[in-house]
Amino acid sequence: MLTLIYLIAITAEAMTGALAAGRRNMDIFGVTVIAFLTALGGGTVRDIVLGRYPIGWTQHPEYVLLVVAGGIAAVLAARFMRHLNRLFLVLDALGLVAFTIIGCDVALGMHYHPVIVVMAGMITGIAGGILRDVLCNRVPIVFRRELYASVSLLVAMLYLGLNLLNVPHDYNIAASFAFGLALRLTALWREWQLPVFAYRHDHH
Amino acid sequence: MLTLIYLIAITAEAMTGALAAGRRNMDIFGVTVIAFLTALGGGTVRDIVLGRYPIGWTQHPEYVLLVVAGGIAAVLAARFMRHLNRLFLVLDALGLVAFTIIGCDVALGMHYHPVIVVMAGMITGIAGGILRDVLCNRVPIVFRRELYASVSLLVAMLYLGLNLLNVPHDYNIAASFAFGLALRLTALWREWQLPVFAYRHDHH
Amino acid sequence: MLTLIYLIAITAEAMTGALAAGRRNMDIFGVTVIAFLTALGGGTVRDIVLGRYPIGWTQHPEYVLLVVAGGIAAVLAARFMRHLNRLFLVLDALGLVAFTIIGCDVALGMHYHPVIVVMAGMITGIAGGILRDVLCNRVPIVFRRELYASVSLLVAMLYLGLNLLNVPHDYNIAASFAFGLALRLTALWREWQLPVFAYRHDHH
Repeated sequence: MLTLIYLIAITAEAMTGALAAGRRNMDIFGVTVIAFLTALGGGTVRDIVLGRYPIGWTQHPEYVLLVVAGGIAAVLAARFMRHLNRLFLVLDALGLVAFTIIGCDVALGMHYHPVIVVMAGMITGIAGGILRDVLCNRVPIVFRRELYASVSLLVAMLYLGLNLLNVPHDYNIAASFAFGLALRLTALWREWQLPVFAYRHDHH
Repeated sequence: MLTLIYLIAITAEAMTGALAAGRRNMDIFGVTVIAFLTALGGGTVRDIVLGRYPIGWTQHPEYVLLVVAGGIAAVLAARFMRHLNRLFLVLDALGLVAFTIIGCDVALGMHYHPVIVVMAGMITGIAGGILRDVLCNRVPIVFRRELYASVSLLVAMLYLGLNLLNVPHDYNIAASFAFGLALRLTALWREWQLPVFAYRHDHH
Repeated sequence: MLTLIYLIAITAEAMTGALAAGRRNMDIFGVTVIAFLTALGGGTVRDIVLGRYPIGWTQHPEYVLLVVAGGIAAVLAARFMRHLNRLFLVLDALGLVAFTIIGCDVALGMHYHPVIVVMAGMITGIAGGILRDVLCNRVPIVFRRELYASVSLLVAMLYLGLNLLNVPHDYNIAASFAFGLALRLTALWREWQLPVFAYRHDHH
């Protein structure tokens, strides 16, 4: 089940990357690279930080091709995307939550400390989007939007908590997933935001 | 002694990261992430480049929590920071010098070539600040300021030189530290700068 | 032969980095760091992603010194660079093609899947330039220019194809190299471009 969600998630994230790249007038190649980094960058950074070699996608070339296809599909579908925007946000939320759970799972399997498990989940969930935004030369949107990274944090903590309580793995995935998706969609719908830390003095 | 300095340094660097993030109107979460990357990013990049696994902070979750607390404290203290600015610069200088010495120490312990030891020191000293500035979408300030990275270079070379001369480790740390801190503070006070390479033609 | 080409390539790429940094009014130190990252960053990212430790330049401190010297030479030569611009583009094309072939070679030696071999070639060829542009705070030029990354892709595929056909290694290098250089220089001369994906609606 997690694999299916994962495949949907990387495709959805590849499409968000392609659309962001398109807004910057990049050519087809740039769109493809950004799509790749958005979809597989989070897992890559996590694997590098945790020292988990070989890195996931280097053993699954089919993921690379899937992500490239997703990016190109987004290019072709872009003129209809205005109508797909809502579906798109749902897919992105699904990707965020799925990546977070997968990241926690990987770190748990390597016997890291709970604090590091939560960080591995968040890195997997949000690093791809950060790479996308840095390469598109803007302040990462993840730091500014309605409860985006916070959802990743809460999902990771819930998943870890249920794991410590010995909740069966499948139930844990289902519960964490449902909670995260519901929270993210509600945050989008109600436009919930964290307080912004607007600090204006210019110190060095 | 180096551990105490290290703890002060990561807290200070976390605070510089939080303040930079605040200037970009990031929310509490963004502030925390930037604080983390500024404080622990340099050591992470060094460990990845040198192939030193597991990476430092993944074995010390208490450092992660300390850094997050430092970032949040900076948020809360920001309104008083105008008056703390001088203390703040001293702490930042302390972090730069401490990180550089620690980075050299790690690479020496892995028996790298002296040139690589100096680079490990500099990576540890300045990479966190580069990550902070890239994520805040500005040209890294480390490339523009009064003798910032140059201090890191000179401290690394001094530390390595005293090590080759078999100066006892504690004396070496103390001497390199005092030299670096004095140089950095003098550079700040006198506004010493390297010549800027202003090259304006637009070639491709 | 490949080593000689490699040395020319890292020197040329260091010079492109130094010139880009100069346009941003960086000091000598910033110029040197950007030169280093442009020249050796691609190979570093490739080695980290493929899990190939120790990373190349950490075993070859002379490469680090060569690259720093190249960057400083570019600073000193910059006032004459207007006349060297054509030579410069040729050197850059040479670097792109050489890095791509070397990257494929490394991944082949580690027995990665062909798709990953192509990606390793492209990462080596273009990641240094991406790092340079991100640190200089602009959208990576590699995503926008006349057939830059596409040349890397085609060279990687040709090199891999000839390898699968058991073409002797030296002939393969010579053929891939000649093809890539000719294609890149023709693309520059004729200003060939990929279609740009200009997608303007602002979705989230």
